[in-house]
Amino acid sequence: MTKLTSIALMIASMFSISTSYASEPIEVIKPAVITNPEKVELGKMLFFEPRLSMSGHISCNSCHNLSLGGVDALPTSVGHNWQEGPINSPTVLNADYMLAQFWDGRAADLKEQAGGPINNPKEMGYTHELAVDTIRSMPAYIARFKGVYGSNDINIDRITDAIAVFEKTLVTPNSPFDKYLEGDQKAISAEALAGYQLFKSKGCVSCHNGPAVGGTMYMKMGLVKPFHTNNPAEGRKGVTGKEADKFVFKVPTLRNIELTYPYFHDGSVWGLEEAVNTMADIQLGQKMSSEEISQMVEFLKTLTGEQPQIVLPVLPPSNNNTPRPVPFTKG
Amino acid sequence: MTKLTSIALMIASMFSISTSYASEPIEVIKPAVITNPEKVELGKMLFFEPRLSMSGHISCNSCHNLSLGGVDALPTSVGHNWQEGPINSPTVLNADYMLAQFWDGRAADLKEQAGGPINNPKEMGYTHELAVDTIRSMPAYIARFKGVYGSNDINIDRITDAIAVFEKTLVTPNSPFDKYLEGDQKAISAEALAGYQLFKSKGCVSCHNGPAVGGTMYMKMGLVKPFHTNNPAEGRKGVTGKEADKFVFKVPTLRNIELTYPYFHDGSVWGLEEAVNTMADIQLGQKMSSEEISQMVEFLKTLTGEQPQIVLPVLPPSNNNTPRPVPFTKG
Repeated sequence: MTKLTSIALMIASMFSISTSYASEPIEVIKPAVITNPEKVELGKMLFFEPRLSMSGHISCNSCHNLSLGGVDALPTSVGHNWQEGPINSPTVLNADYMLAQFWDGRAADLKEQAGGPINNPKEMGYTHELAVDTIRSMPAYIARFKGVYGSNDINIDRITDAIAVFEKTLVTPNSPFDKYLEGDQKAISAEALAGYQLFKSKGCVSCHNGPAVGGTMYMKMGLVKPFHTNNPAEGRKGVTGKEADKFVFKVPTLRNIELTYPYFHDGSVWGLEEAVNTMADIQLGQKMSSEEISQMVEFLKTLTGEQPQIVLPVLPPSNNNTPRPVPFTKG
Repeated sequence: MTKLTSIALMIASMFSISTSYASEPIEVIKPAVITNPEKVELGKMLFFEPRLSMSGHISCNSCHNLSLGGVDALPTSVGHNWQEGPINSPTVLNADYMLAQFWDGRAADLKEQAGGPINNPKEMGYTHELAVDTIRSMPAYIARFKGVYGSNDINIDRITDAIAVFEKTLVTPNSPFDKYLEGDQKAISAEALAGYQLFKSKGCVSCHNGPAVGGTMYMKMGLVKPFHTNNPAEGRKGVTGKEADKFVFKVPTLRNIELTYPYFHDGSVWGLEEAVNTMADIQLGQKMSSEEISQMVEFLKTLTGEQPQIVLPVLPPSNNNTPRPVPFTKG
């Protein structure tokens, strides 16, 4: 037995005994408390704003589609000029529960994350300066920023702040599993409950814990056996520069996991059964029976919560001062 | 004076005298009457469904964005693999008032239109068969089709029917101009009213009439003087085969025209001022003063109505039976 396997099993044993609700390693997701509805509305407009991209075609919602569990349901995303993104787009749902943003945690929080895709040449392909000029050109946006921030000043700091505040409202409470945690024993099936027991006893919960059932720590992908992928991402190593952080990624949330296929940072696995099997194998060195996998999948499906109800924003029109989108580069 | 100019002026004179509401050439847009909310909801889901495209990235809403007046606000659209679309995407708002669909009227109605982009290689790039297989793979869709159509059968006819029924609800009533038409003299400014008088006296209304202020007829683009464009579209000629129909297009709606830039079938003009000036010049052989153009633009802005309030649909998850999207063709 390798040292890593024994650590994994040791951690697993810490969670395998308790079954009382008070000490469950997964916590209830609470509904969003909105204290500044005007800022949330502004952030929602910006989240759906394709004019934050060079092409005028890509918005935050393109890759974090709120009709599809906050993802694009593609292995990697379609970016500016149909460039292929480097990594699977993580869900924006419950993302504020993550200890940091992006798979490698290079952004401290949602606000810092929001600025990234806008000026990433492979994603929205714009510049922060042009994005600000675009928003600043529209009187309706100026009025909203003034109402929310107290002055006319529109800058990337305020734009990403508003987007982040909107994203913080994107939580998915009242899943069957939350109801179970709150004492409703009938909220989940016997099969799902058996899956949850396995989730704890097999050691999954050593990484996937907390309200988001993930997002509380970093972990090596391929802890016990190597993960085979063509994806060149090296995870935390790119942030810390440490060789020990190679292939170490933020543990993804399992909330709404039924909706957020395909799985893993390379988006290589489409089915939950295969994803569970692979995780048990390469992270925990365990072999699961097909019955156990079915039970685990049934449990995972109980983590699908109420999706945010989003009224599509109506965006103000461009005018002669608005930078024009450049969807196609003329030859 | 050319024969066409004299016809244009003759038509114009027919509309230039009356100012009583009863005989106005523009009619009020009525709010949508929804008789089958389940079908509308299903159609909305399909309208926002990116899995109707080969890439899994493009939905109806990509080019007919309901946050942006039912258009993508680009000269021509971004299609599968970032291909450049052949023509400016017309607004889906009030589209059921059009005598036919597409700029060249090649689709009789919204239902026929809805099938076009799905299997157009330059648009959604899919096949009707795979689109049907995709929708049919999801139990939640099967249940909805059964509820709406009385049987489990899912086919392209029902898919496009549901989309069309949703689109029929996308009307924009209660614009300032509608309120004016209904007797509220203060609903529009004196400048806008002067613009409306010009709209009638100059002859614009000879083509732009009816509830949608357009969409009731076909007309040659470049009636009096040629329209210069690099766009190869030939309009109705492609449908009828007649040389006389070259450059004859469906007259676009002017409802929400402030939102549906850039203008003309080639999307070459971004500003309403320039669009008005060009139309007066090449369609009516008239020169308008800058004051007249300002008045006309003020009138046109009064045609912006209440935008449909859309609650973003939550789409059911794919499963092992769902055809997988192919966003990128591997080399």
